[in-house]
Amino acid sequence: MLYAPKEEIYARIERLKTLMEKASMDGAFFHYKIDYYYLSGTMQDAILFVPLEDEPILFVKREVSRAKRESALKNIVSIRSIKDIIGHIKPMKNVGLQLDVIPYNDVIRFRDVIGNANLINSSPLTRELRKTKSPFELTLIERASAIQKMVYEYVLEVIHEGMREIELGGILEAYAKALGHEGLLRVRSLNYEAYTWHILSGRTGSIVSQSDSPMGGLGLSPAFPVGASMKKIKRNEPILVDFGICYHGYQADQTRMFAIGSMPKLFFDAYEACREIHYRVLDKVIEGLTSRELFEYSKRLADKLGFGDYYLGYRPHKVRFLAHGIGIELSEFPFIAENHDYKINEGAVIAIEPKMVFPKQGACGIENTVHIANGKYRVLTDTDERIIII
Amino acid sequence: MLYAPKEEIYARIERLKTLMEKASMDGAFFHYKIDYYYLSGTMQDAILFVPLEDEPILFVKREVSRAKRESALKNIVSIRSIKDIIGHIKPMKNVGLQLDVIPYNDVIRFRDVIGNANLINSSPLTRELRKTKSPFELTLIERASAIQKMVYEYVLEVIHEGMREIELGGILEAYAKALGHEGLLRVRSLNYEAYTWHILSGRTGSIVSQSDSPMGGLGLSPAFPVGASMKKIKRNEPILVDFGICYHGYQADQTRMFAIGSMPKLFFDAYEACREIHYRVLDKVIEGLTSRELFEYSKRLADKLGFGDYYLGYRPHKVRFLAHGIGIELSEFPFIAENHDYKINEGAVIAIEPKMVFPKQGACGIENTVHIANGKYRVLTDTDERIIII
Repeated sequence: MLYAPKEEIYARIERLKTLMEKASMDGAFFHYKIDYYYLSGTMQDAILFVPLEDEPILFVKREVSRAKRESALKNIVSIRSIKDIIGHIKPMKNVGLQLDVIPYNDVIRFRDVIGNANLINSSPLTRELRKTKSPFELTLIERASAIQKMVYEYVLEVIHEGMREIELGGILEAYAKALGHEGLLRVRSLNYEAYTWHILSGRTGSIVSQSDSPMGGLGLSPAFPVGASMKKIKRNEPILVDFGICYHGYQADQTRMFAIGSMPKLFFDAYEACREIHYRVLDKVIEGLTSRELFEYSKRLADKLGFGDYYLGYRPHKVRFLAHGIGIELSEFPFIAENHDYKINEGAVIAIEPKMVFPKQGACGIENTVHIANGKYRVLTDTDERIIII
Repeated sequence: MLYAPKEEIYARIERLKTLMEKASMDGAFFHYKIDYYYLSGTMQDAILFVPLEDEPILFVKREVSRAKRESALKNIVSIRSIKDIIGHIKPMKNVGLQLDVIPYNDVIRFRDVIGNANLINSSPLTRELRKTKSPFELTLIERASAIQKMVYEYVLEVIHEGMREIELGGILEAYAKALGHEGLLRVRSLNYEAYTWHILSGRTGSIVSQSDSPMGGLGLSPAFPVGASMKKIKRNEPILVDFGICYHGYQADQTRMFAIGSMPKLFFDAYEACREIHYRVLDKVIEGLTSRELFEYSKRLADKLGFGDYYLGYRPHKVRFLAHGIGIELSEFPFIAENHDYKINEGAVIAIEPKMVFPKQGACGIENTVHIANGKYRVLTDTDERIIII
């Protein structure tokens, strides 16, 4: 197992403190494991406290000996309940708490620890830090991509006519897990749920679901109405395989198209349009367009290529993003999206996913995870991009 | 796909309204999908509003046409954002919101809809309702159990020496998914995460993790430090397979023991002790002991059988529950636990799981999902209970 190095963890803490100072926080708590993992290196059951002027303290409920092995932080304290924190915290005026994710009642209960301090949301700080990936993080995303490449090659060995979508997905998932895939993609949302992969064939690619995705899929039941279904994969239909991998917490996302026999010409054409949008937008990222400009540019391009009505879904189900940052969460900054107004930063890793959805017919598209650095982009998910015909 | 029948949904709503009246709520919102699924039959992206004196309204963000197909509720309204709800809600004095799960900031934002009304947590109401399973729900749990039985039989076909824990788990999971297993067990907690299954062999069974479980497992990395690991399964060690299944949202939980060759006598003896505790506690459930009394009784029994130090984990990692209700969540009421003071209700479905953990050696135990009704208990997970030697 790889542990985040001490220098890495303390560099993150220092960058955090700079942001805390700007936000006038005397101290900040991190209850949400995604963020305290980023800042401490452990996902044991814990709460991290970072005072502006002092050494951070990781309060661990379970399991403290593992937390000590996993985390490079110096101060790790075993607690049985939140009350045990009180003695460790000095009075503060402005306190950071992760107000976008912590349940309301937990914040109220936490008043025993923080008294009447003003509350400020501390999540934007870690989300800001996580926009830029370190070499250590990039290595883990590259390893995730390497597993992904093997999974896409494995599709060829196992896919066959008459196989159910869920059956193919399950087999690929088992293969990926044996290679170190952790089997989950983390998303910052109370109600989000999906597999780490979509396998959608023919018509199911056009079914929209609860998720903020151009294609939702049918799913297995009203209690899990998203993703792969019991539908059998047929000859001559587009098969979309969007398979995310999570390795040591770091994710890579990718989509490729397959077909048994062939697929309608419409999908070949639409796929080429997606590839064109994908690469021309990346060129514009390097030219320095803002997120909103990139999104608008991609829409104009889809129109020009004759696919405007299907690009990123059909009305009224179109989504308003083309790319999302990716790392330890599936929807990190930066985004290429309608309402985002910034340039894509140096050091970002984004998953760019132009997709076309045709009502009642299916979906197609491409997705790659891409690193932006030194005035260039580099595709990390370097699986062959041609449509695979079996 | 099976949809919850109209009579079922409206019966739940009527029982809810009785509880709302007792809690002095004029209306209650359900934002958390587990609960609005229970009350509406759909898991599309939605918010459910139940006024005390009127017909419920399901506000659906995405995807409304699927919500209409899946839900038996009469009033289903498409919204783009929370603001669209405002016109539909009359002023109220006391409003139910799911304060144990909704993020703090979302509650603050929701003030636009509810004005200055007093807030009351609405989650205890649905959790109370879900204590008792209907015949429709029981059928789904039975189907989950039937899938589970096939998965346990499949272990025999695929397990072999030198296979990694994660490899075996992945293969079983793929098999289960092809039979309709939805691949997740829902838990009401911000930071909870685990596979739907534990495969722990020899020493990894004694490793404690973040989760509130006697055995945690090593996991794959510091970013997923729970459950199956890359450890290879060896001859002559205890192999614990705790494999939960979710079918149409309904779960069944089960644990059985396997070994290749044999396992140390200690584990045979401990397993028999677990079985004795399991069945003697169920007898006492029928006699009407309270939750706390049942828990204490089980501890005394473990002591008497000579396993007190290992029962439900070793110190300081012992857990304080022996059984949890199960249904659309993995930890529903009723529990058999140290701090719970009620009798196990008629109509409950519980997963009872006496387990023993031996430091550095491993874990063993049994778990069944059991229905309590008509003064009897009935084991739903009816896989052979003998230790399977391969």
